Amino acid sequence: MVNREYLAMLGNKSVIRELSEYANARGKEIGYENVFDFSLGNPSVPAPDSYRDISVRLLQEEEPLNLHGYNPTMGDPRVKQKVAESLNNRFGMSYTAEHIFPTAGAAGAIAHALRCVTEPDEEVMVFAPYFSEYGAYIRGARASIKVVPIKADDFQINFEAAEAVFNEKTAAVLINTPNNPSGAVYTEETLRRLAQVLTEKSAQYGHTIFLISDEPYREIVFDGKKQAYPAKFYPHTLTCYSFSKSLSVPGERVGYVAVSPDCEQADKMVAMMGQISRGLGHNCPSSLPMLAAAYCLEDTADLAVYETNMNLLYDTFKELGFTVPRPGGTFYIMPKALEDDAVAFCKKALKYDLVFVPGNGFEAPGFFRVAYCVNTEKVERSLSAIRRFVEAEYPNR
Amino acid sequence: MVNREYLAMLGNKSVIRELSEYANARGKEIGYENVFDFSLGNPSVPAPDSYRDISVRLLQEEEPLNLHGYNPTMGDPRVKQKVAESLNNRFGMSYTAEHIFPTAGAAGAIAHALRCVTEPDEEVMVFAPYFSEYGAYIRGARASIKVVPIKADDFQINFEAAEAVFNEKTAAVLINTPNNPSGAVYTEETLRRLAQVLTEKSAQYGHTIFLISDEPYREIVFDGKKQAYPAKFYPHTLTCYSFSKSLSVPGERVGYVAVSPDCEQADKMVAMMGQISRGLGHNCPSSLPMLAAAYCLEDTADLAVYETNMNLLYDTFKELGFTVPRPGGTFYIMPKALEDDAVAFCKKALKYDLVFVPGNGFEAPGFFRVAYCVNTEKVERSLSAIRRFVEAEYPNR
Repeated sequence: MVNREYLAMLGNKSVIRELSEYANARGKEIGYENVFDFSLGNPSVPAPDSYRDISVRLLQEEEPLNLHGYNPTMGDPRVKQKVAESLNNRFGMSYTAEHIFPTAGAAGAIAHALRCVTEPDEEVMVFAPYFSEYGAYIRGARASIKVVPIKADDFQINFEAAEAVFNEKTAAVLINTPNNPSGAVYTEETLRRLAQVLTEKSAQYGHTIFLISDEPYREIVFDGKKQAYPAKFYPHTLTCYSFSKSLSVPGERVGYVAVSPDCEQADKMVAMMGQISRGLGHNCPSSLPMLAAAYCLEDTADLAVYETNMNLLYDTFKELGFTVPRPGGTFYIMPKALEDDAVAFCKKALKYDLVFVPGNGFEAPGFFRVAYCVNTEKVERSLSAIRRFVEAEYPNR
Repeated sequence: MVNREYLAMLGNKSVIRELSEYANARGKEIGYENVFDFSLGNPSVPAPDSYRDISVRLLQEEEPLNLHGYNPTMGDPRVKQKVAESLNNRFGMSYTAEHIFPTAGAAGAIAHALRCVTEPDEEVMVFAPYFSEYGAYIRGARASIKVVPIKADDFQINFEAAEAVFNEKTAAVLINTPNNPSGAVYTEETLRRLAQVLTEKSAQYGHTIFLISDEPYREIVFDGKKQAYPAKFYPHTLTCYSFSKSLSVPGERVGYVAVSPDCEQADKMVAMMGQISRGLGHNCPSSLPMLAAAYCLEDTADLAVYETNMNLLYDTFKELGFTVPRPGGTFYIMPKALEDDAVAFCKKALKYDLVFVPGNGFEAPGFFRVAYCVNTEKVERSLSAIRRFVEAEYPNR
């Protein structure tokens, strides 16, 4: 008999993937350039030349047995050292190499972090809107996901609603800033208040509540601002990172967990992740892509296009009367639909070859996500389609 | 609170790793070239030039967004197609791309295969001697490992002993041929009898018992022979492969599961693996290394050195009076120690700077493993140390 749980999961098709498949099919009819496919969060700018150049140089100059050899269980020491130094320089932290666990992307990072700080049947709190894979990640660690409803005016944290979700089984809180799907950048004020709440609740329940901070969009922040570094505000933080977006290399699966030096059991966490890896079949990220990324820590792909696209879409949505918090970063924007049922709204948009994702899957019903990691030229062409759609379908908005 | 189970695992240090650390420390004293470190299964020959050349060409010529972009959940279609064709050509199978699931090495492959075909608390049978990580892999899938004792004369399968281990909870059998740690290559006769037993037991218990075949050493077979392909003998086979040994790229973490076309639920297995990946944080192997490997499917590193090393060691062990089945492949040999306690035997060998691994961790007590993935020149120098060790410590053997 095959495993019944995984067999049953085959029925649940991801809405995002269904929409993306629709967009591809429609693209075959009318040309993909004419489908305004805003469904998928795939980077649209190429990796920086430095990433290619260092990869080629490593292949040509490093001893193949060293370059392609097994990494130690807890990761390549060169990578760990470079990541620690870069985080210390950028965010005033005091990581050592021993606090860094290289992983296969943010998914690998979160898989290890969750298993470190939860027991089966404990709870992990997330704040809506949240990345729809979090449920699978948390269930994979045999913990339960508990969702705090959205704060609709600015997509910061809804602390009032969180109050009712905390309980003695809360083991960790998983945040994502800059946020997929809302584009919100948590402010220093939000992070400070979160730290205060976590400190109070930890004291109240007699155990540390850990913060897992998922930060793949850290480098995509608009208006010349920076994302405040969550681990600066709360000691018990496991920072999860992926180079997928900053270097536009999502397929290479490279990232890390950084365990805050003042975190409970900070000196044991990375060794625990080494043990966790064995059962997951993870065994370190791939050597060459990880080492190449570690040599490009201060580089990024040309991320400015995302801000250009955001401004074009934000201005258009505002002008058309949408309620829409202005994104502080990422390549997502999440306006309120023009009718209560965002699924119906997105279905109507398809008639205009506009592919939006209803917010339901992110636990933000009534909203829809627009992933503008596409060419600016296409975004510009989409604006008139958006106008036509809204004026025809919602004349009395 | 951090997770107690993983915290407790920190106490259990791997014997192999302890010995390897001893060898490194000793190497600092007397020069690593003077330590005959036979502890670790790390390939000792460089990756073939073709692997480097295709990697460089892909970096220089492919569109970076394609090369480094997200793979589909079930893997890069080009990789899947190439792997299927190669297996069909080499082994007369009839895989299609849909039967292939690219993974991060054999560890990733086994992690997915195990979860596909077991329910929590079911049993997975392994045959001693077996790779010591199998316990972690199987516990990671929440199943139980059940060990069939060794067949000491030739390290083939001990079918008589297996009879007592089969029961209605047996969900799968996990084999490894060519075998780490024994070097045994399962014969056609062994594989045919295994298929017959699995067919009978499946009928007896009213459910299919799956075969998971772990084959990272498939390309390292001696005397001009070939490893018979286990999936040819039994339809319900999930073949797990890694390019770590054939291409000498263990750090790049590339491999696959091939689901036999006649396997129960063959058309659903790869989709199930896609679902399993989500909870594991796996999400496909790294793009560039996997694609490069797929372009080198018919290539290998220069593997002949392993056969040269095996013959030198085998002849010496035989001459010195050891009981030792001659390996058919891999880069391991597993002689019987010259006293009942192989741990004591290996401890004495350390005095002669010979680092062997006692068979206890592989459930082959009384035996020891010699990993001869080292330079032939070093193997040659080790022979006189082996002679001195045996003659001084076991003069009356």
